[in-house]
Amino acid sequence: MNDSIDDLTKRIRAFVAARDWEVYHNPKDMAVAIAAEAGELMQHFVWQQPEQLSQRVADHRDEIASEIADVGILLFEMADLLGLHLGDVMASKLTYNEQRYPVEKSKGNNRKYDEL
Amino acid sequence: MNDSIDDLTKRIRAFVAARDWEVYHNPKDMAVAIAAEAGELMQHFVWQQPEQLSQRVADHRDEIASEIADVGILLFEMADLLGLHLGDVMASKLTYNEQRYPVEKSKGNNRKYDEL
Amino acid sequence: MNDSIDDLTKRIRAFVAARDWEVYHNPKDMAVAIAAEAGELMQHFVWQQPEQLSQRVADHRDEIASEIADVGILLFEMADLLGLHLGDVMASKLTYNEQRYPVEKSKGNNRKYDEL
Amino acid sequence: MNDSIDDLTKRIRAFVAARDWEVYHNPKDMAVAIAAEAGELMQHFVWQQPEQLSQRVADHRDEIASEIADVGILLFEMADLLGLHLGDVMASKLTYNEQRYPVEKSKGNNRKYDEL
Repeated sequence: MNDSIDDLTKRIRAFVAARDWEVYHNPKDMAVAIAAEAGELMQHFVWQQPEQLSQRVADHRDEIASEIADVGILLFEMADLLGLHLGDVMASKLTYNEQRYPVEKSKGNNRKYDEL
Repeated sequence: MNDSIDDLTKRIRAFVAARDWEVYHNPKDMAVAIAAEAGELMQHFVWQQPEQLSQRVADHRDEIASEIADVGILLFEMADLLGLHLGDVMASKLTYNEQRYPVEKSKGNNRKYDEL
Repeated sequence: MNDSIDDLTKRIRAFVAARDWEVYHNPKDMAVAIAAEAGELMQHFVWQQPEQLSQRVADHRDEIASEIADVGILLFEMADLLGLHLGDVMASKLTYNEQRYPVEKSKGNNRKYDEL
Repeated sequence: MNDSIDDLTKRIRAFVAARDWEVYHNPKDMAVAIAAEAGELMQHFVWQQPEQLSQRVADHRDEIASEIADVGILLFEMADLLGLHLGDVMASKLTYNEQRYPVEKSKGNNRKYDEL
């Protein structure tokens, strides 16, 4: 249930089309909206200390889930708008990351690929 | 192919686990990383005018796809980390949005639900 | 009045010190807070069309001013925390930008310095 | 030297005017650019652990200063564009914050004003 990127994307597309919102949903405004929603997600954790995170998540679980959903909905739509299959670009990037971050070099450290 | 949120999430989880990166991937740092990647996606469109967007996307298609993938990978992982099913929270939010933005009130305008 | 970066920075420093907040105000959490507040500022313009901007600003002037102030307060503090003089780093960057964006090449276009 | 918000703002305004960039610098695109630059500043700290921050700042001091300058330059210009005096709106917000965060209630904790 709700596991198919395609099915969710179709539902999002229908939602947008029914409201004639395609005119607003150009690539720039999609990217801006995604960044704004990602900022709202991050707002839940500003100034929070490591030992406060579990409680924070427990206290704001529904709001955090809602912000995650907002980012997801916009991201699925943006990929679709650009004619990209989100699952495919993610799979390609994962393959690339597996090469950029070889297990033997990146295990247990948080260095970027260009610092390995 | 690559259409299942669950399958992609499992692959991401395995990628992270193989590198012992769970220690870094707490909810706060996930949210920060998502916002930072969303910022990189948005960078492709800063100062761009409406009439420049098609060319911009055509010229930077692979980089933009790569940024979208980065946001997606982190978002799928964050939902999983919080014990959320991304597809379910997206579907719930879509249902909520369908109620907040009734077609008859929101068709053809970009007002927020609290301004309808 | 209120024109001196130093004076405002001293006031911010005193505000933070009086609340024993230095423990939270490390460089990472400052940068995260700045990005989160910049996201709130941007939220006022999400989906807004060019012809709607004047009205938007008029209708939300105080809130927008408040978000700009939030970014400014955190930015002044972060520069101070890193031992930087904000005015000096801004002046240096302006000099650098004057070189990167020569008037004859950048006049009337929005290309980045590496595309000139 | 370089301590006056007005003087820096005048220099920024002249830089923009000399390049005929006022046409691009509407309030929305300014806010988007600020958020994008704030994202670049934050990028220096993604996944960094508390004990890594000092070294991080030492290793990337000039780049971090440069990102702080970028946010500052855009923020000074945006305030000016909206007819706001940045120092005044910051001073007003500081006064408001002093009321929202009374020392006796906020000392030594990071709760938001609505959780005090």
